[in-house]
Amino acid sequence: MTEPAPVPDALLSALRARLGAAQVLTEPAALAPHLVETRGLYRGTASAVVRPADTAEVAFTVGACAASGVPIVAQGGNTGLVGGGVPRGGIVLSLARLSGIRALDPVGATLTVEAGAILAEVQAAAAAAGFLFPLSLASEGSCTIGGNLATNAGGTAVLAYGNARDLVLGLEVVLADGRIWNGLKGLRKNNAGYDLKHLFVGSEGTLGIITAATLKLFPKPLSRAVGFVGLASPRAALALFARMRRAAGPSLTAFEVMPRFGLDLVLAHRPGARSPLAEPHDTYALVEFSSLQPEAGMEAALAASLAAALADGTAQDATIGASEAQNAALWALREDLSEAQRREGGSIKHDVSVPLARLADFLEEATAACLAAMPGLRPCAFGHFGDGNIHFNLSQPVDMDRDAFLAEWGRFNAIVHDIVVRLDGSIAAEHGIGLIKRDALQHYGDPVGLDLMRRLKAALDPADLLNPGKVLPGEAAAQAPGLP
Amino acid sequence: MTEPAPVPDALLSALRARLGAAQVLTEPAALAPHLVETRGLYRGTASAVVRPADTAEVAFTVGACAASGVPIVAQGGNTGLVGGGVPRGGIVLSLARLSGIRALDPVGATLTVEAGAILAEVQAAAAAAGFLFPLSLASEGSCTIGGNLATNAGGTAVLAYGNARDLVLGLEVVLADGRIWNGLKGLRKNNAGYDLKHLFVGSEGTLGIITAATLKLFPKPLSRAVGFVGLASPRAALALFARMRRAAGPSLTAFEVMPRFGLDLVLAHRPGARSPLAEPHDTYALVEFSSLQPEAGMEAALAASLAAALADGTAQDATIGASEAQNAALWALREDLSEAQRREGGSIKHDVSVPLARLADFLEEATAACLAAMPGLRPCAFGHFGDGNIHFNLSQPVDMDRDAFLAEWGRFNAIVHDIVVRLDGSIAAEHGIGLIKRDALQHYGDPVGLDLMRRLKAALDPADLLNPGKVLPGEAAAQAPGLP
Repeated sequence: MTEPAPVPDALLSALRARLGAAQVLTEPAALAPHLVETRGLYRGTASAVVRPADTAEVAFTVGACAASGVPIVAQGGNTGLVGGGVPRGGIVLSLARLSGIRALDPVGATLTVEAGAILAEVQAAAAAAGFLFPLSLASEGSCTIGGNLATNAGGTAVLAYGNARDLVLGLEVVLADGRIWNGLKGLRKNNAGYDLKHLFVGSEGTLGIITAATLKLFPKPLSRAVGFVGLASPRAALALFARMRRAAGPSLTAFEVMPRFGLDLVLAHRPGARSPLAEPHDTYALVEFSSLQPEAGMEAALAASLAAALADGTAQDATIGASEAQNAALWALREDLSEAQRREGGSIKHDVSVPLARLADFLEEATAACLAAMPGLRPCAFGHFGDGNIHFNLSQPVDMDRDAFLAEWGRFNAIVHDIVVRLDGSIAAEHGIGLIKRDALQHYGDPVGLDLMRRLKAALDPADLLNPGKVLPGEAAAQAPGLP
Repeated sequence: MTEPAPVPDALLSALRARLGAAQVLTEPAALAPHLVETRGLYRGTASAVVRPADTAEVAFTVGACAASGVPIVAQGGNTGLVGGGVPRGGIVLSLARLSGIRALDPVGATLTVEAGAILAEVQAAAAAAGFLFPLSLASEGSCTIGGNLATNAGGTAVLAYGNARDLVLGLEVVLADGRIWNGLKGLRKNNAGYDLKHLFVGSEGTLGIITAATLKLFPKPLSRAVGFVGLASPRAALALFARMRRAAGPSLTAFEVMPRFGLDLVLAHRPGARSPLAEPHDTYALVEFSSLQPEAGMEAALAASLAAALADGTAQDATIGASEAQNAALWALREDLSEAQRREGGSIKHDVSVPLARLADFLEEATAACLAAMPGLRPCAFGHFGDGNIHFNLSQPVDMDRDAFLAEWGRFNAIVHDIVVRLDGSIAAEHGIGLIKRDALQHYGDPVGLDLMRRLKAALDPADLLNPGKVLPGEAAAQAPGLP
């Protein structure tokens, strides 16, 4: 990879003068954590990490970089899984210091926060006022709401509350030329021209830098029931889901699925973990019903639904948590899966979605195709089944070298993504495109849709300075590292 | 208004050759219904109404017009309330013949329909499969889903299900150059690049022409309770709403408010209408709780909430429908209000929203300001209170000439919109901008946001041929008629 031109000293001096010298980091040790992504798949380069304190300083920084032609990648918690936050020259703009809670409106049920606020702190601010901010995902202790919005994060609450995009009413965004768009409206209905917020949500920092957001809050559920269900197949899980959705509607707040291999990994790698069911099953579903009422009979409702599913053979076995501690223990079996899989060795990962009606077809076809391509491979397809979103992960054969296995990443991507696209699915369900799927998007994407995306990029960032080469290949594309 | 250049005969011939002569209408009588908008506030001009049969014919029509530099306005049911469908030269592209239901997926709970399908038929197709398509508004018997999406329609189900934008998973769109973007995905999670569908939803036909959509379906509620509540003020209605939302969450499926004057109009103009409450009240709320269970105790839950509100003085009186017939009769009091207001004489209308916390402030301030400007004026502020969306309508003084009153439209707009904007609201909540609020959007809109909108328009429709002069002033802006 050719190094981009270094950042001019005059720019760094101007940034130090405005932000303070301590907020413009150039020491290698200070830069290091900002140059890598979570899984270590990419290593980037940057001349500086710049830490503005507020929106005006973000605008100043972006404007100064624009004037010097210096590219910028915005970073929040740097927890993304697609390489979207990896710098490729230029500067890293850290939103870490924009972490304030600006306002909570209990009447409008809205929360206005700055982009660098940690998701868990946003959840806590909502909870302290008696509300729920439902976005929830594995990295919530370190990811930031700005990154969640920039990537349209998904997670475990999408079934009932939608993706991050659906949880935002208004945005404040610094544009590529350093201007500030003030779209921080807290309105439930607003048709005053084009909806600009949806343009920035999910654009992965390539069209603008989100500096603050007004979020929707919800009444806090006061009771829940959690079930863990043994099933004969993913197809049976689909039948169970359809039954649960019809019975519970918005009370069905989670429907997660994992395979027997996934549960086995958690049981093997987490000390003290126990299977909640007596016998092993091909497929497991974690089902949650929630209610705003403290005594809403959620356990009885879930038990009745599961009893019917057991009676007609849809489900093979099931248990319901008898306490909040047991509910949490059931959830932990699902939540610990990624970490257990990491301990098991190398994984080639796919974050994909298909229409629900094709979910079982997808799992059967993709599993067979991958096993045919590499006998001994251990598929671990799990995730947000009710959203049609599967983390189709492949654990390495037991006796294979990790790096040799990971070198097959591209080959398995092609196998899995071909099937996803044939089934009208998406190769990027909740993690985004970033760098890791950029070329795949070019390959699989609708050509007219790709042309529209290029036009939007050119309209909003004509100099290609905001996170260049992510999502879409830009002028710097030829210099981008390929897949690992 | 200067007439735009006539449409070339060669273009009309080409369209007749492809679509059939019967589908290219040029007779004045055939054109007439397409040249006016619902309230008769604008009258447009067009050389032809073109009625393509399918997406390919839409694409051909748009491509041919683009090649000739002829502007196009798309029309569905032509029920819009902001003049967005009024042609200003060029051709009217009617989507009426693209009215098919393409597919219903009961597993994925999606419905794929063509743009010209009547909203009521879309609702019926969902209901026939045991689902709910929740979008519901006064014109549902004649408006089309394409128009609903192009304007991001609101209506009475937004509180529980969101705006039209929130009900769409995928779109098929014909672009300004005649290409077709196939974004008809039925996925609950899809982060494969920028979200293009949200760009077209609410763009009022100025960025592309929606030809089909994949919609979300929901489990059909099987029971409901409807209450009609007498309140001392809008502020009391706000307190009641906060209580209901916290108690019922997603079961609260409607919270509509109307003033005493509004109920009086319905009682005066609809034969047989009766007030459900013994005494008159300053403000009335219509509250609906719904459940997926046939015997869910919605009446008991609503009764308990209302009893608490009566006990502490939040509400003054309340009744609950004892049957579905009574529920429908309570709803009719709200639904008949627009027609009753029409019968009462001229109305100057505002479709605005403010943050819920400022709703009572807005109503008090705007009412006082309008009465100060014209004693004898009869404000009738009603609507989707739970969404912060008020139809702040002003009925003419009893003894005033209708046309003389309507001539004051712009003066009252300025009074009301100034207050809305000061309270961080929107001058266009659910009806859009169209022609009627275009100049107001320029006046009140965030300048950076307006610049972004212009860039998007230039990127997607550089020749300004798709519904020119709507939402944004275009090249033809100088020729646009002003407010009525």
